[in-house]
Amino acid sequence: MMNRSLSIALAQLNLLVGDIKGNTDRILRALKQQRGRADLVMFSELALCGYPPEDLLFRADFNQLCITQLARLQKASVHTAILVGHPWKQGDQLYNALSFFSEGKLLGRYFKQLLPNHSVFDEKRYFTPGNTSCIVEFKGYRLGMLICEDIWSPDPVDALKNLGAEVLLSINASPYHREKPYIRNQLLINHCKGTTLPLVYLNQVGVQDELIFDGCSKVFNAQGDLIHRLAAFSEESLVFNLKELASQQIAETAIDADHPLAQIYDALVMAVRDYVNKNGFKTAILGLSGGIDSALTLAIAVDALTAKNVQALMMPFRYTSEESINYARQQAQKQKIELKEIDIHPIFDAVMGQLAPFFADRKKDTTEENLQARCRGMLLMAMANKFGHIVLTTGNKSELAVGYSTLYGDMAGGFDVLKDVSKTLVFKLAKYRNARDGVEVIPQAVIDRPPSAELAPNQTDQDQLPPYAVLDKILEGYLEKDESVTDLVAQGCDEATVRKVIHLVDSNEHKRRQAAIGPRITCRDFGKDRRYPITNGFRHKDLAKD
Amino acid sequence: MMNRSLSIALAQLNLLVGDIKGNTDRILRALKQQRGRADLVMFSELALCGYPPEDLLFRADFNQLCITQLARLQKASVHTAILVGHPWKQGDQLYNALSFFSEGKLLGRYFKQLLPNHSVFDEKRYFTPGNTSCIVEFKGYRLGMLICEDIWSPDPVDALKNLGAEVLLSINASPYHREKPYIRNQLLINHCKGTTLPLVYLNQVGVQDELIFDGCSKVFNAQGDLIHRLAAFSEESLVFNLKELASQQIAETAIDADHPLAQIYDALVMAVRDYVNKNGFKTAILGLSGGIDSALTLAIAVDALTAKNVQALMMPFRYTSEESINYARQQAQKQKIELKEIDIHPIFDAVMGQLAPFFADRKKDTTEENLQARCRGMLLMAMANKFGHIVLTTGNKSELAVGYSTLYGDMAGGFDVLKDVSKTLVFKLAKYRNARDGVEVIPQAVIDRPPSAELAPNQTDQDQLPPYAVLDKILEGYLEKDESVTDLVAQGCDEATVRKVIHLVDSNEHKRRQAAIGPRITCRDFGKDRRYPITNGFRHKDLAKD
Repeated sequence: MMNRSLSIALAQLNLLVGDIKGNTDRILRALKQQRGRADLVMFSELALCGYPPEDLLFRADFNQLCITQLARLQKASVHTAILVGHPWKQGDQLYNALSFFSEGKLLGRYFKQLLPNHSVFDEKRYFTPGNTSCIVEFKGYRLGMLICEDIWSPDPVDALKNLGAEVLLSINASPYHREKPYIRNQLLINHCKGTTLPLVYLNQVGVQDELIFDGCSKVFNAQGDLIHRLAAFSEESLVFNLKELASQQIAETAIDADHPLAQIYDALVMAVRDYVNKNGFKTAILGLSGGIDSALTLAIAVDALTAKNVQALMMPFRYTSEESINYARQQAQKQKIELKEIDIHPIFDAVMGQLAPFFADRKKDTTEENLQARCRGMLLMAMANKFGHIVLTTGNKSELAVGYSTLYGDMAGGFDVLKDVSKTLVFKLAKYRNARDGVEVIPQAVIDRPPSAELAPNQTDQDQLPPYAVLDKILEGYLEKDESVTDLVAQGCDEATVRKVIHLVDSNEHKRRQAAIGPRITCRDFGKDRRYPITNGFRHKDLAKD
Repeated sequence: MMNRSLSIALAQLNLLVGDIKGNTDRILRALKQQRGRADLVMFSELALCGYPPEDLLFRADFNQLCITQLARLQKASVHTAILVGHPWKQGDQLYNALSFFSEGKLLGRYFKQLLPNHSVFDEKRYFTPGNTSCIVEFKGYRLGMLICEDIWSPDPVDALKNLGAEVLLSINASPYHREKPYIRNQLLINHCKGTTLPLVYLNQVGVQDELIFDGCSKVFNAQGDLIHRLAAFSEESLVFNLKELASQQIAETAIDADHPLAQIYDALVMAVRDYVNKNGFKTAILGLSGGIDSALTLAIAVDALTAKNVQALMMPFRYTSEESINYARQQAQKQKIELKEIDIHPIFDAVMGQLAPFFADRKKDTTEENLQARCRGMLLMAMANKFGHIVLTTGNKSELAVGYSTLYGDMAGGFDVLKDVSKTLVFKLAKYRNARDGVEVIPQAVIDRPPSAELAPNQTDQDQLPPYAVLDKILEGYLEKDESVTDLVAQGCDEATVRKVIHLVDSNEHKRRQAAIGPRITCRDFGKDRRYPITNGFRHKDLAKD
C-alpha cells in the first residue's frame, strides 16, 4: 500500500443548464486536457445537465438525452477515469446520481441520500433519495462518494468512514451567499477532523438565473488543513496526487483571506456576465440617474461586459437636478461608455394631456411620479428592443422590500443587478470599487449626496423612509431572520418605525412578484428563497391583542 | 349501538390566508350557528391560517398566534365539538395538523402523513410528516381522521380501516383544475367501496392567489353513493346525521352533472372576486380592444364585481379598426359599464419623436408594436393609480406561452384572468356565457371575427402563429403533458410547426416570470406549477442528433 498513487484533477466548470450535449462536449474536452496528467477527473453535481435543471427533469426527452450523453462519457473513460454528476431515471424513480467510470466500465454509481428542499432548493419535488453509501476502489484507494447536501449532516460521512473509506470525494452545486464560504469551510474542516480523512470538495462555478455558484473547490488533508483551493467566481482546473497530501504545504490563500466585499462584488460581476451571455445577449443598457444605485450597477456592468458593450440613458425631467445630469456625464466619461440623453417632458406631457379630461379635478399624487418612471422604462425598453440590448434594472433590495419603486417603470428590465443588495451595502460596494484599483469609477459626489428618486421637487428618500441604516436593520431582521415586531423592538428599533416598515414589505409582495430576477447574495433573497402569498391577511398587530 | 346518533355539520368556508384571528372569529361564528343543531362541526385543512400559508409558516410569531387562537377554539368546544385543521409546532418540528375538541378537551390530534411536494405544492418545505393514524371515539362512533393528501394513496385509509374506524372524516384544501372534480370524485367512491366505510369529505372554498378551491364537499355512504354535496365555488354549510346515511336518498346533483364550461366559468368569476376583494380593491379597470380576450375578461369581471365596479378603457391607434371601436362600445353598453376612450397617437408620437435621433435609419419592427402596447399599459396603470382600481390583464394562456404579448404593455396589471385559459377555450367560454342566460353579453361579431393584436396594418394573429386549434394542441401536449417533438409529430402535428412553437415557448420564459398572476384551471398553469429555468440550453434538436 505504500506505493499507492492517485492523481485527481478537479474540473471546476461553468456549465449551462439544460445544454446536455454542450455540457458533455465541455466535459470531454476537460477530460482530454487531463489525459496523461491525472488518473481521475472530477466534475460537479449534475454536471451533465447543469444545476438546477428544475422542471426540465420532468421531461422524458430530457432524461433520455442525459442517458445517451452519459454513454459518451463512459466510452471516453478508456484513458482517464471520470467521476461525474447526472440525473438517473430508473423505472419510475429519478435520482440525483454520480457515476464513476474507468476503462469504459462503470465502477460505481451513487444516489444522493439527502435532498435539500429548503431555501432555494426543491429537490424533493424531483428526486427519490438514495439509501446506500458508495465506496469505489480505484488505484488502491477506497474512495467514498458524496453529493452536496450529503455533507450537511454527519450521517452519510460517518457511514463512509465506518465502511472503510480512505478519502472523501464530494461533488457539489452549492450556491453562494455572503456567509456561505465561511460556513462551508468550517463544515469541511470539521468533517476532516471528525473522520481523520482527507476531503476533496468540488463545486460548480457560474450563474444560473438568480443562483451564483462560487466555485472555490478545495482539497483538505486528514487534519483539516486546506491544501489546495480553486478560484472563486471563475473556471479553474487543478491536479494533485493523494499520496502527497500529508506532506504538502498548507495553501496561503484560504477563503477567509478574501475581503467579504470583494467576494460580493466579484459575485455580482460574474452574475451579470453569465446571465447576459447565457441568454444570448452581447450588450446591455441601463438608466443612469446620477444616483448611487445606477452608478454601482454601471460599474458592475462595465466590469462584466466591458465598456463597449454597455450603454446608458440619462432621461431628465423637471425634477432632475443639474448635479444629477453632471454626475451621470462624469461617470460615463470615467467609464468610457456611451451616454445618451432623452428628455422625457414631451412624453410625460402627452400622457398627462390625454388623461386631463379624467384627472381634471384630482390632486397630484404618486400617479404622476409613477408616470415619470414609466416614461423612462418605456424608452429603455424601446432602445433595448430596437438594438438588441438587455435592460439592466438598478433597484436595490431595500427599495424593492418597501415598494419604493415603480412597476413597469424603474422596475422594467431583464436582470436586476442589485436586487439582493441593501442600500447600505450599495454604499459599501461603491466605496470598495473606487478603492480597489485606486480609480474613482463612481464619482465620489454620487456616494456623498443624499439619495433621492427625484420624482417631486426637492424630494429625498429620507422624506418617506427611515434612515437607510435603520431601515436595513429592520429589513434584515424581518426578511432574512423572520424576526417579529417584538424581536426588533427588543433590539432597540422604534416600534412605530418597525410596524411601518413591515407593513410596507407585506403590502408590496405583488410588485416583487413581477420584478426582474436578480442575483442572490444573502441567505434569503426575493426569489425562490422567499415564497410569500400576495393575498396575505397576517397582521402583526393581532399578536399584541391576544 | 343501535341508538347511536351523531350529527355532523360541514362548514365549507372561504377563509383568508394569514388572517389567523379573523379566521378564528369566522370559525367561532360558524360554530355558534350550529349550536343545538350539530354535535360536531368540521372545518377544512389549515382552516385556522388558510391554505397555503407558504413561508409565513417559517415565522415564530405566526405559529405563536396559531397556538393562542387555537386555544380559543378549544375553549369554545364546550357546547359543540370541533374538528379543525391548523399548523402545529412541536419542538423543532412543524406539522400539518388537525385537532378534535369536545367539551373544552382535546380528544384527538392528528398529523398529516402524506405531504404533497409536486405540482403547486411545497409541503415538504414546511412540514414533518406524521407517522400515526388517529381514531377519535365520539358519541359511540369510531371516527378516522384524514388530511387531504392522505386519501391520495391507499395506505392511511387502509390503516384506519384496519384499526376499526367506522367513518372516515377527511378535511381538505384541494385546489381545483378542470379535470380535478372527476378524478377526486372517483377516488372518494373507490375508498368507500374498498373499505365499505362512509366518507365525509370537507374541502376549502375560495381563491388564494393563483389557486382556486372549489369546495364541493361531499358525503358518501359505505357503498360509495353520493348522499350530500355542497356548493361549488361558494360557501355553504350542511348538517346531516350519520345514523341516517344508509337509508337516505342519493343526491341528484352529482358533480358530474355540472357542465365543464360552467365550472371553469364559475371558477374564474370566483377568482376575480376573491383576488380583487381579498387584496383590498373594490373596483377594476381593463383595456377593452374589441377582441375576444378582453370581451370575455370583461364579462367575467362584471359577473364577479357587478357592472358599477368595472370600468374599461378603449385606446385606439391608427391600426385599430372601426369595428373594434364599435364592438367595444356595444359590449360596454350591453354590460352597462363605463367605457372611456383615450387616443394613444399623441403619446406614441411623443415617444417616437424623442427616439427619432437614435432610430433615424432603422426599420420599423416589433419595437414600435411594443410601444403601442406600452402606451396602453401606461394609461391603464395611471387610471388605476389615480382612482384606486386594480388593472385586470386580458392575456390568454396561448399567447403567454408563445410570448405573443408585451411586457409592461398588455401584460401590465394585477391579475391576469385568462392566464391559464387557452385561446380555443376562450372562444368556448365566450359562447357558453352568451348561451347561459340567452343574453348576448359578448357581441357575436367579436366571437366570429379573426383574432388580431391590431399592432400593424391588416395584421391577424394567424399571420405569425399557426391556427389556434393547432397551436393549442401542441401547447397542451408540450406544457401540460411534457410531450416531446417526437410524441407530437406521432399525433399528427407538423414537425416544423411543433419545433417553432416549442422554440417560442422556451425563449419566452423571461416574460412569463414577470407576468401578473392568474387563476389556475388546468393541471399545469404558468405559476407554482411550472418551474422552468429562464437560462435554458435544452435544445430539442439535440435529441435527434445522438
